[in-house]
Amino acid sequence: MKTLASIPSLNYEVVFGETGAKALQQLIQKNDYSTIFLLVDSHTHQHCVPVFLPLLATDQPIEIIEIEAGEAHKHLQTCLGVWETLSESGADRKSLLINLGGGVVTDLGGFVAATFKRGIDFINIPTSLLAMVDASVGGKTGVDLGVLKNQIGVIVPPKMVWVNDKFLETLPAEQMRSGYAEMLKHGLIADPAYWEKLADYNQLTTNKLLPTIHHSVGIKNKVVCQDPTEKGLRKILNFGHTLGHAIESYALEKDQQRSLLHGEAIAIGMVLEAYLSVELCGLPMAQAEAIKKVFLSIFPKEDFCATAQKEILELLVFDKKNSHGQVNFMLLEAIGKPVIDVQVPSELFAPAFAFYKA
Amino acid sequence: MKTLASIPSLNYEVVFGETGAKALQQLIQKNDYSTIFLLVDSHTHQHCVPVFLPLLATDQPIEIIEIEAGEAHKHLQTCLGVWETLSESGADRKSLLINLGGGVVTDLGGFVAATFKRGIDFINIPTSLLAMVDASVGGKTGVDLGVLKNQIGVIVPPKMVWVNDKFLETLPAEQMRSGYAEMLKHGLIADPAYWEKLADYNQLTTNKLLPTIHHSVGIKNKVVCQDPTEKGLRKILNFGHTLGHAIESYALEKDQQRSLLHGEAIAIGMVLEAYLSVELCGLPMAQAEAIKKVFLSIFPKEDFCATAQKEILELLVFDKKNSHGQVNFMLLEAIGKPVIDVQVPSELFAPAFAFYKA
Repeated sequence: MKTLASIPSLNYEVVFGETGAKALQQLIQKNDYSTIFLLVDSHTHQHCVPVFLPLLATDQPIEIIEIEAGEAHKHLQTCLGVWETLSESGADRKSLLINLGGGVVTDLGGFVAATFKRGIDFINIPTSLLAMVDASVGGKTGVDLGVLKNQIGVIVPPKMVWVNDKFLETLPAEQMRSGYAEMLKHGLIADPAYWEKLADYNQLTTNKLLPTIHHSVGIKNKVVCQDPTEKGLRKILNFGHTLGHAIESYALEKDQQRSLLHGEAIAIGMVLEAYLSVELCGLPMAQAEAIKKVFLSIFPKEDFCATAQKEILELLVFDKKNSHGQVNFMLLEAIGKPVIDVQVPSELFAPAFAFYKA
Repeated sequence: MKTLASIPSLNYEVVFGETGAKALQQLIQKNDYSTIFLLVDSHTHQHCVPVFLPLLATDQPIEIIEIEAGEAHKHLQTCLGVWETLSESGADRKSLLINLGGGVVTDLGGFVAATFKRGIDFINIPTSLLAMVDASVGGKTGVDLGVLKNQIGVIVPPKMVWVNDKFLETLPAEQMRSGYAEMLKHGLIADPAYWEKLADYNQLTTNKLLPTIHHSVGIKNKVVCQDPTEKGLRKILNFGHTLGHAIESYALEKDQQRSLLHGEAIAIGMVLEAYLSVELCGLPMAQAEAIKKVFLSIFPKEDFCATAQKEILELLVFDKKNSHGQVNFMLLEAIGKPVIDVQVPSELFAPAFAFYKA
């Protein structure tokens, strides 16, 4: 397989595939870290650490810190445990934290590192498809506050991100689909040809996915580098996320039903927001129907009763992109043509859910 | 009284005295904040809010958030309470947090703001002498981890700092002394004439203190602006703090004795480190004796038994400025001439405590 070029992001590089091992070793050598910590969750401890440690190839001892797996543990109490472990283990300002895991591990680990002694270096090794295509660029770190997603965090870039598709071999199918939703989003907001290419999920096979991941990271990176602090353009990455985050929070809050994975929630969000795009931005209905068809071919349809819809809309106001009590949406005027900061009249939400359900 | 010039710091200004009210109003108007929150502790709620609110003169409603007073509350549980209150009150990315209080309120409030929804604007109005001369520049925010000082935090500057000596009128004498210790440190590390001027604490009167505070802020600001990320020069601000922080943590840990105020702890630290400076950097013994005499004329002598000394030295390794297991000291070769990154042999600590005790 040919080598994929590294993607230069904000002050660091995203490296791909086997070349990453050497880049990681060089970075560690160059920075003369006092101690190296490896943050994992219970899943990546079992499945990814045995793959990763031989690739690391350093004589320095590595201390492993394990957290519980899953979005429900992406909160401050988990951070507190990691900070305390770092402190008790003698971590200092020249320590390095390597985050090996999905978005929960890289987001939480990034926040822990960015705030420990006012900031130590960290490296992200995403092991889920979602974390590879989404959390790998942008420098966003953070944890949830109650059920509210990523309310506490900072924007601090890692020293390096290594996207290694080896880790995808052990990833459950539902986690693959979750990441795929973000890749489809990249097509919808910026690249109609890429959207078309990805539309048939059945063609997906793990062993030739790396170039596609590389393309997605490239799309996101281009947007982020043009607007690192999310003043304008970067907002387009939130297509499907305004309602998607509210749906994810709602599912997290309801113990009786299975929590939705991030990709599952934003897939629903993108269908709902495609409908809003028809109503408010002139997206052709045929394109909205196509968007719905693709997502429903990948994700089973969820049921939202009137009460559920009401609670989801109440959660909308907590979205970080909002201010002055207004909920701002990122919509589409066509596939590949996003529109930012659209105000949505509240009477459009019920028809949007009806469109999803129909 | 003549107007004192504002001091431009990292991306913001420190304004002094009565002119601050107008500057604050202009800043609030210009930024069109969605909501304004005022963080106070139980003391400043009682003593400073009644002075501050009339000066603010805005039509916007101000929501007051109160935390418990004192260093023992400078931890993550307190942050969690403030984050939750902000969230429940509908704070968004265009909200403003004004921190009105001593260093605990401005450090903790700065951290809360810098991490809420990945960062909202905050303004610091220090009400203690210590916070005016120390926390007002540098952009350091943070909270303690257990008894370990400021282990969790970020460097993010406020939008503005307003130093208003009106608030000093209600400040207890021990709090005045605590701030004075930092001012004396400014003389020791950078300005022998200023040290001489401040040496007689009895000459201090509140009502003509503002120009002196201005001078201290100027000294610290000059250092910080030359080295914002603490790679080199800025370390000189830690004179007295390496042992001082360990002593402060030790006192915080021991419930049976009164917690030491920050200034009280670093005053002891400066005497101890003056002795180390004699041994390692050629500080004349006469200057070390003079330093000791001045601090002991202001602060009562504390007693440290052999066990206490041992525990304090064990806490030293947690200091944020250390790495690779080495404890780095900032010492003096003469008053006004600091030396950074000095390694101290452990056998010198007992004689240093003996010097303090003698």
